[in-house]
Amino acid sequence: MLDWRGSGLSVMEMSHRSGEFVSIAEKAEADFRGLMHIPENYCVIFLQGGATSQFSMVPLNLLNGKDSAVYVCTGSWSKKAIAEAKRFCDVVLAANSELEGFNTIPPMTAWEIDPNAAYLHYTSNETIGGVEFQRIPPVGDLPLVADMSSNILSREIDVSRFGLIYAGAQKNMGPAGITAVIVREDLLKTTPLDIPSMFEYQLHAKNRSMLNTPPTYSWYILGLVLEWIKNEGGVEALEMRNIRKANKLYSAIDSSSFYSNPVDPRYRSRMNVPFLLADKSLDKKFLIDAEKEGLIALKGHRSVGGMRASIYNAMPEKGVDTLVEFMGEFERNC
Amino acid sequence: MLDWRGSGLSVMEMSHRSGEFVSIAEKAEADFRGLMHIPENYCVIFLQGGATSQFSMVPLNLLNGKDSAVYVCTGSWSKKAIAEAKRFCDVVLAANSELEGFNTIPPMTAWEIDPNAAYLHYTSNETIGGVEFQRIPPVGDLPLVADMSSNILSREIDVSRFGLIYAGAQKNMGPAGITAVIVREDLLKTTPLDIPSMFEYQLHAKNRSMLNTPPTYSWYILGLVLEWIKNEGGVEALEMRNIRKANKLYSAIDSSSFYSNPVDPRYRSRMNVPFLLADKSLDKKFLIDAEKEGLIALKGHRSVGGMRASIYNAMPEKGVDTLVEFMGEFERNC
Repeated sequence: MLDWRGSGLSVMEMSHRSGEFVSIAEKAEADFRGLMHIPENYCVIFLQGGATSQFSMVPLNLLNGKDSAVYVCTGSWSKKAIAEAKRFCDVVLAANSELEGFNTIPPMTAWEIDPNAAYLHYTSNETIGGVEFQRIPPVGDLPLVADMSSNILSREIDVSRFGLIYAGAQKNMGPAGITAVIVREDLLKTTPLDIPSMFEYQLHAKNRSMLNTPPTYSWYILGLVLEWIKNEGGVEALEMRNIRKANKLYSAIDSSSFYSNPVDPRYRSRMNVPFLLADKSLDKKFLIDAEKEGLIALKGHRSVGGMRASIYNAMPEKGVDTLVEFMGEFERNC
Repeated sequence: MLDWRGSGLSVMEMSHRSGEFVSIAEKAEADFRGLMHIPENYCVIFLQGGATSQFSMVPLNLLNGKDSAVYVCTGSWSKKAIAEAKRFCDVVLAANSELEGFNTIPPMTAWEIDPNAAYLHYTSNETIGGVEFQRIPPVGDLPLVADMSSNILSREIDVSRFGLIYAGAQKNMGPAGITAVIVREDLLKTTPLDIPSMFEYQLHAKNRSMLNTPPTYSWYILGLVLEWIKNEGGVEALEMRNIRKANKLYSAIDSSSFYSNPVDPRYRSRMNVPFLLADKSLDKKFLIDAEKEGLIALKGHRSVGGMRASIYNAMPEKGVDTLVEFMGEFERNC
């Protein structure tokens, strides 16, 4: 941490223009491209500002003179993306599962897709509802845009199906403070001159993500995470592990009448597993007892209550085993 | 690094909503307020995107229906701020030292200040030219805005004289990836609805800098730097040290005909000391020999050539002593 390869410097202290840092940055990009099999005609950009900045940056850059964009609403992150897009264009909803309590994905064959819109945006995994797309939606010729903040690198995806993919790093890629954008080159257009420079993809792409000082240390740690994924066998190996982890947990929930998960089994998230106790009055005891076993951060989001196990890439399989075991014991003792 | 106070978690892994992180964040803000004597009626906001984002955020938030803002141009950072502001308003130049090669600050008494403009912006230290304001310019009733990225916390300043101060962290505050904004509360107005949420100061202020996931680890390290400043005796003590460091270096330069500094002595920077060798052909040898003594990163910016010693807060006094000694020896041996 304090001395990068005998340089006497921490990566935190390095100039982003130094040879040392540029080599760190380039290796991270190359590893990311390799792991996700990103085609040559896609740019990779590393930015600041998280998905929330992307909620504005996507319409500001991809509208390209059109008035509307199509959005799919499958949970609270979709809703935020939609609210922000409305600042810049008409939002046409292709599908919306809010009336179903965000526990499913409306049938893709029934989506209403306006072919004159600028693009179609969806959220590939909803962390609060625990709903995840299991396949890439077919959207015709419209550029497909996905917020993959919470499931990027957790499963193999065909990047060539997308116009643009973005992801805040803090779930599966590294520490908060850096955002990855993968964008098909032909979508990089000159934007109107009255938007902030920092919100122009093209400018960041031209400057190799160094339009200004990037979050160097976050970029470095992201690189270390990518190396770890390579050493684990790549995204394919992590996907297999994630399937096993999720199956174990959902099986435990489904085989009990003590626990339940409200999500349509076809769209259950492999990353975020919300579950309810049949007897809500035991919630508090569950959390306290779990913490004694080293199982922390299991409280569900305040908007849905209950429990939530977030089992991102970094959660080892034995962590899920411990949770499943604890859940069984807790049920038997109640 | 891997286990924050027995929590079993690295700060990098913590949720920004967790009690642990909120306490880290609040302590950093309190220490920052204490060190800079920030009055109660000022908000402190921690953001992403560096000064470059502020170049747009300032006009987007402070124009408040007006058409123009006043800028002072004293170097390459001022120029960047001005170019970005022109996307959003008319820029009226109060003063410009470009014809003098950015080696001075035009007399403040002669500045042309339009009282109907929205604010006056200046760059308190220019890292490339090595020019620094030694006092706060008198601007009447206009809200005064300063980019203090490269000299914040290096000298005492009277915050109450300002409408808004911003600073990217990576010079004197911490690692790249976090930006501090100090803004007088009455300037926080509702912005037009067609700008990105991430560019609204008011929204960030309301959300205590947690509108979205903040750069948690950078915030934490920033807090450690602030603690270090407290332990060193506060900003006052650092200012005394910075004066001594700069004086030693400028004295060495001025007392030699081998080295020279082109900046008006009244406005020489305490942070960035550019200097030229009388015989340019020795530049390369100077850099090679210096590196052998552990004196690195002395190459001047490509736009001005020569050398530059950046002696921010983190540079110890004995680092400057070593440099001065080396410069003397190099001169004698040539």
